[in-house]
Amino acid sequence: MLPREGVGGGGGGEEWLRPMDAEQLRECGHRMVDFVADYYKSIEAFPVLSQVQPGYLKEVLPDSAPRQPDTLDSLFDDIQQKIIPGVTHWQSPNYFAYYPSNSSTAGFLGEMLSAAFNIVGFSWITSPAATELEVIVLDWFAKMLQLPSQFLSTALGGGVIQGTASEAVLVALLAARDRALKKHGKHSLEKLVVYASDQTHSALQKACQIAGIFSENVRVVIADCNKNYAVAPEAVSEALSIDLSSGLIPFFICATVGTTSSSAVDPLPELGQIAKSNDMWFHIDAAYAGSACICPEYRHHLNGVEEADSFNMNAHKWFLTNFDCSLLWVKDRSFLIQSLSTNPEFLKNKASQANSVVDFKDWQIPLGRRFRSLKLWMVLRLYGVDNLQSYIRKHIHLAEHFEQLLLSDSRFEVVTPRTFSLVCFRLVPPTSDHENGRKLNYDMMDGVNSSGKIFLSHTVLSGKFVLRFAVGAPLTEERHVDAAWKLLQDEATKVLGKMV
Amino acid sequence: MLPREGVGGGGGGEEWLRPMDAEQLRECGHRMVDFVADYYKSIEAFPVLSQVQPGYLKEVLPDSAPRQPDTLDSLFDDIQQKIIPGVTHWQSPNYFAYYPSNSSTAGFLGEMLSAAFNIVGFSWITSPAATELEVIVLDWFAKMLQLPSQFLSTALGGGVIQGTASEAVLVALLAARDRALKKHGKHSLEKLVVYASDQTHSALQKACQIAGIFSENVRVVIADCNKNYAVAPEAVSEALSIDLSSGLIPFFICATVGTTSSSAVDPLPELGQIAKSNDMWFHIDAAYAGSACICPEYRHHLNGVEEADSFNMNAHKWFLTNFDCSLLWVKDRSFLIQSLSTNPEFLKNKASQANSVVDFKDWQIPLGRRFRSLKLWMVLRLYGVDNLQSYIRKHIHLAEHFEQLLLSDSRFEVVTPRTFSLVCFRLVPPTSDHENGRKLNYDMMDGVNSSGKIFLSHTVLSGKFVLRFAVGAPLTEERHVDAAWKLLQDEATKVLGKMV
Repeated sequence: MLPREGVGGGGGGEEWLRPMDAEQLRECGHRMVDFVADYYKSIEAFPVLSQVQPGYLKEVLPDSAPRQPDTLDSLFDDIQQKIIPGVTHWQSPNYFAYYPSNSSTAGFLGEMLSAAFNIVGFSWITSPAATELEVIVLDWFAKMLQLPSQFLSTALGGGVIQGTASEAVLVALLAARDRALKKHGKHSLEKLVVYASDQTHSALQKACQIAGIFSENVRVVIADCNKNYAVAPEAVSEALSIDLSSGLIPFFICATVGTTSSSAVDPLPELGQIAKSNDMWFHIDAAYAGSACICPEYRHHLNGVEEADSFNMNAHKWFLTNFDCSLLWVKDRSFLIQSLSTNPEFLKNKASQANSVVDFKDWQIPLGRRFRSLKLWMVLRLYGVDNLQSYIRKHIHLAEHFEQLLLSDSRFEVVTPRTFSLVCFRLVPPTSDHENGRKLNYDMMDGVNSSGKIFLSHTVLSGKFVLRFAVGAPLTEERHVDAAWKLLQDEATKVLGKMV
Repeated sequence: MLPREGVGGGGGGEEWLRPMDAEQLRECGHRMVDFVADYYKSIEAFPVLSQVQPGYLKEVLPDSAPRQPDTLDSLFDDIQQKIIPGVTHWQSPNYFAYYPSNSSTAGFLGEMLSAAFNIVGFSWITSPAATELEVIVLDWFAKMLQLPSQFLSTALGGGVIQGTASEAVLVALLAARDRALKKHGKHSLEKLVVYASDQTHSALQKACQIAGIFSENVRVVIADCNKNYAVAPEAVSEALSIDLSSGLIPFFICATVGTTSSSAVDPLPELGQIAKSNDMWFHIDAAYAGSACICPEYRHHLNGVEEADSFNMNAHKWFLTNFDCSLLWVKDRSFLIQSLSTNPEFLKNKASQANSVVDFKDWQIPLGRRFRSLKLWMVLRLYGVDNLQSYIRKHIHLAEHFEQLLLSDSRFEVVTPRTFSLVCFRLVPPTSDHENGRKLNYDMMDGVNSSGKIFLSHTVLSGKFVLRFAVGAPLTEERHVDAAWKLLQDEATKVLGKMV
């Protein structure tokens, strides 16, 4: 479909590529739409977790790039035969691993349009619509979450789309670091201390490595297993007091709403108070559970956000907006900008120099940025807040349903109380099991994952090997949950039988 | 097109969203393809540089997200009437600003497919094809560029797709920093010194800020105006000697092949030698000009890459691969991984634990990552290396043509010799002009940009305000260059007339 004659055929008789011919794009684009729609139609036919072996693709692809163009037909063949077997189907209704990464028709259309414009929106002038739509849609979203008004662009704060929650916590940490260094002197980096629980996402540890925070100054406070793995504020205070008396400088607390292992919710009001009393930056990572907080009945999990300096949630997880789209709000944008701005001559322009516009290059790590607000805007426009709330509630309902199924079979236990759409459970090991169920549960997980019928992942809580059943793929219905449960029951029978 | 009945209508009589219904996706996807193809068909009708005023979008969009879904028709209307006026058309054949950001049919199809799978490829297991295709295609590309074999995945090095050149230089700097700190002790951060020319992209300065390198330890060596703004190795050596004698620790040199202002090429062999003799990390930023080096006649600009520790080029600039797609190769991947890896329990899996696979999360800042190798693979497959070389040559030929036009009109001067597809020029100011042409050339630029007919940007070289004419948009033909030239000549007459 991109034959020589379509690719070549320029003026002056010379062979020359016309890589953005509108009619060629139209024809090929329609074919790709059908390919994608057919993929979604048959998505349940594939093993959810790819079953290929390491190095499989090298065996079937050539060693070097082709000198001559190939046809679209042959490319589609390769995608079917060589690529798809190596895809783990995050959009399958039988995907329950990690946390979800939602695609949707609206999100997909937004990605298409963004790829079509293919602008690089580092400064306002490079496409005013990209910056302005982002400002507007992040304000919309802040209102949906009932964030304090200081987080709105109309105040001193504002929202920005980062690629991932990792980048969000990194830029928050850098802003906090530089604020602290300004106050305490640039030679005090070695004294700066970060606080978070052992349930905090590893992105924080990585951000600390990047920012040059000494690893011994990253306080990993053990979360309270009696409080469902939320951190106890007293434990943070205690660590902080010791550090203060050692002459160290506490400067950053990271709280989580919906931890990765068990969707625990840290006590925001108390942590916020500690941060405030000690002039520290308070960051909230609600990457997964933030979506649920657009429902009034879950909003209380954000109480305490008033004290936050920065708040993050991933629209690309559970909010139907294709990856990547991580939303970060700050209460005072000047700290981000002070840490991250550059102003080379070759980017100067009237609007930026007049200070009349936002240049998002100064709110993020990279210079270039895609027109990501389009997809979020399209999700909000084409679905509407009411439907998005129903979507969240449906998944939480399905997780409740799975929890009930677990409770009906005494071989299983629910390890932590469910808060959102994640259920942490395990097969109860016989008392004689000196591994406390590690191998038993690993084998059960490996068994169901290897079947290709479902995909779930694990964690470890208080030394227990725990399985995570995260509902949240866009196509998941009750029948998929029921089938997953049946599969787990059968596998349980199998692995328990082997133990005897 | 996403009416209530399409969105609602789940089982059990309840209203419930089906956000990834295959047939709805098909119908809406076809409509978006036509929208995009029509956009490309009429792209020359829009002002290249958006002519809106700051805040324009807020005036025409509501204050909060809609509660109820809207139709696709109404969304398309809004895109036409409200979004497109705020788009700066990077894909217009009349776009000559900054450096190009190429879209193409193949790249667009790759974006579509990547958005459709919507996987999050942090670890091999999350979609083996995403990691393996990336490894393979980066090896292909390394061979196209004739990079030394140490940069291949089969040796100790390998390639990885970063979002941007900013991220590429940041991860290289972090790897170098941590290697140096390991050697000299973790308290020596304050002594680490970075070397680059004043023509180096501002991304390096930003990377240094992020990595905690002291700003006074970033040596900005003034480039040699007699060598077309390449840096003189003697100047670097000299600065380095002074630093060594002050007890500082030189650890990083960044060279550029194709600087942003004037596409200067730093002397790689000499800089590489300095780096080697002083046990420093040598990074090469060929973000823009790297593409040209797939042509044998331009490959010599990479001579000296043998001494590099890391090498970067942006396939999303001039290589028909939609943004973002920045290719980074390292000679020893272990340094990247040591700086950037994390290994939380919830991400552990058999393949990773067995060390039998690459997990690209440990080669980059974020955890999550898109399936970006698809679009690069599709560009290579659907166009082929021969056509891609012709594509580059065509643009360079057009830039030569523009240079000739400039030389035919004595009112203009070519400021630096053209090396690739960028021409730096200005209107020669009358000797009486105490601003040395700054206002004159600014006004000429502002005049043509405000016409909406072309878009070009500027820089400053040795105090001279210089216009940059960067050929590289996929649809640009000779007639566009000729029309741009005519426009510039007319504007020159106008602004020169005003001076009299």
